[in-house]
Amino acid sequence: MHVHRVRVGFGDCDPAGIVYFPRFFHFFHEAMETWFDEVLGLPYAEMIRGRGLGFPAVHTEADFAVPCAFGDEIAVEQRVVGLGRTSIRFAYRVRTHGEPDSPTRLTGATVSVVMDLDPRRPTFRRPIELPADLRARIEPLVVAP
Amino acid sequence: MHVHRVRVGFGDCDPAGIVYFPRFFHFFHEAMETWFDEVLGLPYAEMIRGRGLGFPAVHTEADFAVPCAFGDEIAVEQRVVGLGRTSIRFAYRVRTHGEPDSPTRLTGATVSVVMDLDPRRPTFRRPIELPADLRARIEPLVVAP
Amino acid sequence: MHVHRVRVGFGDCDPAGIVYFPRFFHFFHEAMETWFDEVLGLPYAEMIRGRGLGFPAVHTEADFAVPCAFGDEIAVEQRVVGLGRTSIRFAYRVRTHGEPDSPTRLTGATVSVVMDLDPRRPTFRRPIELPADLRARIEPLVVAP
Amino acid sequence: MHVHRVRVGFGDCDPAGIVYFPRFFHFFHEAMETWFDEVLGLPYAEMIRGRGLGFPAVHTEADFAVPCAFGDEIAVEQRVVGLGRTSIRFAYRVRTHGEPDSPTRLTGATVSVVMDLDPRRPTFRRPIELPADLRARIEPLVVAP
Repeated sequence: MHVHRVRVGFGDCDPAGIVYFPRFFHFFHEAMETWFDEVLGLPYAEMIRGRGLGFPAVHTEADFAVPCAFGDEIAVEQRVVGLGRTSIRFAYRVRTHGEPDSPTRLTGATVSVVMDLDPRRPTFRRPIELPADLRARIEPLVVAP
Repeated sequence: MHVHRVRVGFGDCDPAGIVYFPRFFHFFHEAMETWFDEVLGLPYAEMIRGRGLGFPAVHTEADFAVPCAFGDEIAVEQRVVGLGRTSIRFAYRVRTHGEPDSPTRLTGATVSVVMDLDPRRPTFRRPIELPADLRARIEPLVVAP
Repeated sequence: MHVHRVRVGFGDCDPAGIVYFPRFFHFFHEAMETWFDEVLGLPYAEMIRGRGLGFPAVHTEADFAVPCAFGDEIAVEQRVVGLGRTSIRFAYRVRTHGEPDSPTRLTGATVSVVMDLDPRRPTFRRPIELPADLRARIEPLVVAP
Repeated sequence: MHVHRVRVGFGDCDPAGIVYFPRFFHFFHEAMETWFDEVLGLPYAEMIRGRGLGFPAVHTEADFAVPCAFGDEIAVEQRVVGLGRTSIRFAYRVRTHGEPDSPTRLTGATVSVVMDLDPRRPTFRRPIELPADLRARIEPLVVAP
């Protein structure tokens, strides 16, 4: 499990004083980026800029239980729950940071595909197989959904 | 069906040049707001500020097929596909604006509950029954999912 | 003068119920984009993708007088108040849409430079002279600050 | 000087691959929030929700020198450079995090006023004097612009 910590800011919240829900998908994406950097040891920026790979979402979802308000410190827990030929399935759970037994604020999931972003390759803008070095590092991390 | 038109801006897009997917949930929310204003004739701002009602999402999801890039004019089509005691289920479909037969870019759904935002009421911050005047206006609009 | 109309959304606002001020710079940028599209007749997306030009801000500022709240329809008025060898200076004024004599909500300004975004050119990522066709269309629009 | 660290995310950047400039004002605001929390020891969320005070910007500005790209770790340095009867003036400087002698990416400034957000007080939605306890903590921090 990878934990991405977020301090909920004033600007993340709406007039009801709680996180405007589209922002949680931004937090999910940030969690994926820091997972590349910190867990895989393959910096996300290097994947995109250096290797011309992208990881766009083809599906995403979330179920909201307890609101998050500005000033809250939250933990975005990320697990890999599936690995296809060209895709990775992530599951998310958000709780109060530092309180792993606290009630779940929300759960979510995203399926990302590996996309070729290099215009010089014939597969440009098409889904491609997860490169072998990524697969080797991700496979041991997969857990049951 | 309610159609909310969006001109995709530079700032809605990510370094891959396409809409950063969390933004679509913002577009979905904007569609719901303009639906209150233009279809129900009950301005969204009046619901929140005047009547102390909120409509937070308890569930949302999206499936992405064809990317949207900056400069694209898109139509966010919204339908009401379910009405519970305290909730409304919206379905979304995004296409090129003005081309109703163009390929679907993405589909999505959101379930919103009616929340009491008035601190003077005993139901403050709890889901409440959809008020009768809203139900009367929404019921005729419900279509099969 | 170019007028960009914005319906302030719930998600543009902060817990105080008014536009989170960084959003106004997004509205300013949208105004510049629609000015390319509608006034110059040179679509912004074509400038970026087709011609490899960018228009990053080197300076921006705003002075806030009257807040904007969600549901407000506002007019972002944009004028060109300066044209340098490599830069364009825009002035902004925001009022209630459809009420040109209503009190100013805020004023602002942005200086954008023309940047070469084409990696095949020696001037890649450097400011370049405003192309002649753009200058010809913009020059007649310049007004006193 | 207060330093707010930001890891620039994919979603903070535009199709040119660099931070979409309105986001810097969000980073400035986050810096102000963490300054309340960490430097003043008066949590920002407590100011807003507990004491009914707001700190809206009446002026802001920025000058951009060197772009920031996704994956960059940046330090948003914040100083208090002025204290009025009802206002605080902040100056910002952004550099590479952990490299205090690295070139300045951008500088900026914001003037925030103290606003009464409590509807039960006669000064509701008006600027009010900076409360004595805040002034006592901020005054020793003021440096020359």
